[in-house]
Amino acid sequence: MTATKIKRMGILSSGGDASGINPCIRAAVRTAITKNVEVMGIYEGFDGLIRGEMEELRARDVGGILQRGGTFLRTARCPEFKTKKGQREALRELNESEIDGLIVIGGDGSMHGAHALAGYDFPVVGAPASIDNDIYGTEMSIGVDTALNTIMEAVDKLRDTASSHQRAFLVETMGRGCGYLAVQVGIVCGAEMIIVPEEEATIDEVAEVLENAYARGKNSAIVVVAEGAKLKCSEIAAELNARDIGFETRVTILGHVPRGGSPTAFDRMLASRLGVRAVELLLDGKTDVMVGLQDGAIVGTPLEEVISRKQSPNPRYFEIARMISR
Amino acid sequence: MTATKIKRMGILSSGGDASGINPCIRAAVRTAITKNVEVMGIYEGFDGLIRGEMEELRARDVGGILQRGGTFLRTARCPEFKTKKGQREALRELNESEIDGLIVIGGDGSMHGAHALAGYDFPVVGAPASIDNDIYGTEMSIGVDTALNTIMEAVDKLRDTASSHQRAFLVETMGRGCGYLAVQVGIVCGAEMIIVPEEEATIDEVAEVLENAYARGKNSAIVVVAEGAKLKCSEIAAELNARDIGFETRVTILGHVPRGGSPTAFDRMLASRLGVRAVELLLDGKTDVMVGLQDGAIVGTPLEEVISRKQSPNPRYFEIARMISR
Amino acid sequence: MTATKIKRMGILSSGGDASGINPCIRAAVRTAITKNVEVMGIYEGFDGLIRGEMEELRARDVGGILQRGGTFLRTARCPEFKTKKGQREALRELNESEIDGLIVIGGDGSMHGAHALAGYDFPVVGAPASIDNDIYGTEMSIGVDTALNTIMEAVDKLRDTASSHQRAFLVETMGRGCGYLAVQVGIVCGAEMIIVPEEEATIDEVAEVLENAYARGKNSAIVVVAEGAKLKCSEIAAELNARDIGFETRVTILGHVPRGGSPTAFDRMLASRLGVRAVELLLDGKTDVMVGLQDGAIVGTPLEEVISRKQSPNPRYFEIARMISR
Amino acid sequence: MTATKIKRMGILSSGGDASGINPCIRAAVRTAITKNVEVMGIYEGFDGLIRGEMEELRARDVGGILQRGGTFLRTARCPEFKTKKGQREALRELNESEIDGLIVIGGDGSMHGAHALAGYDFPVVGAPASIDNDIYGTEMSIGVDTALNTIMEAVDKLRDTASSHQRAFLVETMGRGCGYLAVQVGIVCGAEMIIVPEEEATIDEVAEVLENAYARGKNSAIVVVAEGAKLKCSEIAAELNARDIGFETRVTILGHVPRGGSPTAFDRMLASRLGVRAVELLLDGKTDVMVGLQDGAIVGTPLEEVISRKQSPNPRYFEIARMISR
Repeated sequence: MTATKIKRMGILSSGGDASGINPCIRAAVRTAITKNVEVMGIYEGFDGLIRGEMEELRARDVGGILQRGGTFLRTARCPEFKTKKGQREALRELNESEIDGLIVIGGDGSMHGAHALAGYDFPVVGAPASIDNDIYGTEMSIGVDTALNTIMEAVDKLRDTASSHQRAFLVETMGRGCGYLAVQVGIVCGAEMIIVPEEEATIDEVAEVLENAYARGKNSAIVVVAEGAKLKCSEIAAELNARDIGFETRVTILGHVPRGGSPTAFDRMLASRLGVRAVELLLDGKTDVMVGLQDGAIVGTPLEEVISRKQSPNPRYFEIARMISR
Repeated sequence: MTATKIKRMGILSSGGDASGINPCIRAAVRTAITKNVEVMGIYEGFDGLIRGEMEELRARDVGGILQRGGTFLRTARCPEFKTKKGQREALRELNESEIDGLIVIGGDGSMHGAHALAGYDFPVVGAPASIDNDIYGTEMSIGVDTALNTIMEAVDKLRDTASSHQRAFLVETMGRGCGYLAVQVGIVCGAEMIIVPEEEATIDEVAEVLENAYARGKNSAIVVVAEGAKLKCSEIAAELNARDIGFETRVTILGHVPRGGSPTAFDRMLASRLGVRAVELLLDGKTDVMVGLQDGAIVGTPLEEVISRKQSPNPRYFEIARMISR
Repeated sequence: MTATKIKRMGILSSGGDASGINPCIRAAVRTAITKNVEVMGIYEGFDGLIRGEMEELRARDVGGILQRGGTFLRTARCPEFKTKKGQREALRELNESEIDGLIVIGGDGSMHGAHALAGYDFPVVGAPASIDNDIYGTEMSIGVDTALNTIMEAVDKLRDTASSHQRAFLVETMGRGCGYLAVQVGIVCGAEMIIVPEEEATIDEVAEVLENAYARGKNSAIVVVAEGAKLKCSEIAAELNARDIGFETRVTILGHVPRGGSPTAFDRMLASRLGVRAVELLLDGKTDVMVGLQDGAIVGTPLEEVISRKQSPNPRYFEIARMISR
Repeated sequence: MTATKIKRMGILSSGGDASGINPCIRAAVRTAITKNVEVMGIYEGFDGLIRGEMEELRARDVGGILQRGGTFLRTARCPEFKTKKGQREALRELNESEIDGLIVIGGDGSMHGAHALAGYDFPVVGAPASIDNDIYGTEMSIGVDTALNTIMEAVDKLRDTASSHQRAFLVETMGRGCGYLAVQVGIVCGAEMIIVPEEEATIDEVAEVLENAYARGKNSAIVVVAEGAKLKCSEIAAELNARDIGFETRVTILGHVPRGGSPTAFDRMLASRLGVRAVELLLDGKTDVMVGLQDGAIVGTPLEEVISRKQSPNPRYFEIARMISR
């Protein structure tokens, strides 16, 4: 494919929100402007694209958003865009608005959408944002570090209550089918046990770990359970409270809170780097790729590859967790 | 009642934990030591008292706890102490340990226990700790301000997600039968609606408020629902998602997280003042009272009165909420 | 004075910024609108008023500012307004814009300005905002609680370093001539010593306190020094490091950081209540008063009285500090 | 070198403290215990080692320290250890205590000390901790991420005040000769300009950047100045306030605050991984190396190399900063 000179670029965020999307938009917009490319901000993801809801973004329009959670371009799910008809409508809007390249910030589903558009020979570069960290092609997605710190602070607080009452808390974290977030939370919060889809456990095993912790003199215990694990927090709690394991058991489900909040330094930096690089690649004629963090550098991976693979947590983390949780 | 000179004082925390109990213990211990009174720290509330689980606390033993959540003396529920038999056991332990006065830090149930002990002519002063702020005799209990700030930060984060997705979030706060926490959260988070036991609402009213907010151009909405309200979050969400009110609806239940965490400045100060005053009253021969914040001063209220009344949120707050939530 | 019916109200913030001014503006604007009064937002304080820099504020215009530090109406010092000429210009602008009442949010200097305007029979109500908490007529000013928590978190962090290195840190807090903030910080951070204009100390006294703390086994020490104290941090440090007191000494000056940041729950609530009440008083025909927190209620105090008196920290706090800092 | 089987390992922290040293100690201690190696905790760095101040650490002894800033083993500078005599004393203590391997956590100076000890054929592995991120052999040192987030939150707060008053703030960050921290802070806080030893600037350049920012409509500006830069904040401020650049200028020096505080998720994870790996290498017979993060993995680098080179910030960051700061 020959690189067409891009004069006006579109940018949108799609799928679930994550903290750091705003700094990514800011970096992309300002990089484009530095390179004399106009930018159209498209509101509410692919849905807004189909409806033509967009406006020009200048350097000042993305001032003051660096420290804000969420996405000021808003986001939405868009079932319509999964159809050829929806995709054609989107292309038509892009052409009518004289947009000749697009940056799509979002998760797995959004990268599918980006790949579909690129299939019509429209230049598209994706940037990964998802607190689940389940996107292939990047070691960290935008929003993961912020979510991890928010969850960690919540679990640190639960630990105060757990220690005061000699309780075990079962904490359910987000993450869909991916145990990444749960394993990380488990290690950074010193959880006594971690239950993830990649390494399931039985209630008997949980009971044994907690009884041992109690016997070894611990005055509290935390068990982190990934959303996608087969064993559910409520079942475990019901069963453990029926047995006598030393600790009383309580459940906490953290819900949507970790998605929001001012992005951490790591997320602002990652998001900024991804935003800059996405524009650079787009202007270099690259398309149908997603920018991602690999071995410290920001590189592009074909969207084809991104959407056909899954990222799994490094098994080394489970080993670390087991050694230092005693 | 004649003031007996107190030579050795006991101190315990009882009931649910709250952030600020540690600074209260620290202040009480050091005030007693300043006044040449020995202090025995009793572990795990009335339960530990019955079991004689205690040790002497010196000034250094309460160093470094000012900024910690929970209670380093731990806490426990103690059904046994509700019986005369349990109370007699407790008195016996106090006498055997040559303790001649007791500070009890805790909530409503703990003040009942304190009052029961005082009924045996044993000098007891209570200090209020409860994130529900439902204790009569004090405008603020230890732990309320910390809980309120933790909930507020969580709701601020939810607002990011709500705004990005044009959603309404239903947030359930703790508080048992008391709507105090929910009203405060509602005002400080700019909630579009607040539902509390003291002012119930119907689902139709919720739907109307949210539809209006959507129509007026708001891109998110927060409804705070007190734990004790008749209308439950899950019901509201199910019903609203079945209707078309503009916003999609999600539920978040904050659980135990707001109990823990490093106490805020307000809670450290309140707890310190309560701890100092509790000891001063005890040494002055006052008994069967609870110290509390009233009109800016720390004063004692008879425990009889404390346990027979309920504190309700000032109706003025509902008026404020209605005016400024538009 | 007869109450004139107010149809259009102006609002401005003046003097040093403080966290919570935004929620105060929001509450005032929405209360006015609820009562069918139009609101003009005046930018950059009295300076902007003289230049006629203002625009109408509607309910949506103050959406999303509740959780923001600073003041979206901006603020400025205005020497010109101290002259009769400046005041006449301001009145002329108010009349030309058909504004018939004004809310002024700010510190001591701003209340002087408000009082001057009221002297021309123009209806004015003030609301106190100042992290120094030196304004007479209110127990707490907007911004104090946020500043106090920010400083406390900073000192908690310094304590980590102090303990790791066995050091004493001298921490200078803001507060101009008023020791309030320093005393509060001292108590909530467990400072070993507090030096304020209201209770000065000599270097020998500081040295003695620190040597004793070291001898009693403390592995760190914090001395809080109010900006307005005669003894300066740098002098103390130089002198102490020349002597052998056990601890090495370091200085930290917290600067402007505590002014900003998202307001705490307390500040959002206080600011909201003050904003609501300021408008209510203004519409009730009250003028030349400042709203303030007294014994739990929001009441008005004549500006004459506000500007001619000083608020001092309660001496009880020094007593508490001495007892529990051991 | 033949691997001697290690039966008892020592561990110490040395030099300036950094947040995350506690989780590193915890991970190392528990990993050693898992592998049936006893651990002696040595207090106050090399100084304590020479004085033989140490005690055995068991798994429970490092419980509850994961979330604490500072180092519970304390730290100290030790000029004596730079001499052969001091080193011989240290070796003698190690031998007398039957310690046959040592983990040293600290910065550049501490790695020099570790290398000196290894020169006597004593098995030593280092782990990097320094908020300056100036240690060769690791992309990130323990404490950097926490410091960066603390500084970022402070600068976000300054931005509130800067915007309210239309001011420029000059912020001095730590970092000794290394501009890493300043560049990172500059990007994540959206600073208008970054001045570091690696890329110096003149006052005229600063004035030009700020005037342009003012002219482009920015209502505040932040200039981050690294401690090691030739241009000092106070000089710049004096000079700028003498000229008319639109903004008034203020200075903030962040001091020691960013060293402390509860470690972030990133720092807890990095520290844990470094602690685990340091012990694994030591038990594998590796010595005279430092563990570090390189391309996502934890690897060893010879201490010889670590202490003879310097880490510099990637020039790419300056380019990013320039593009997105407009």
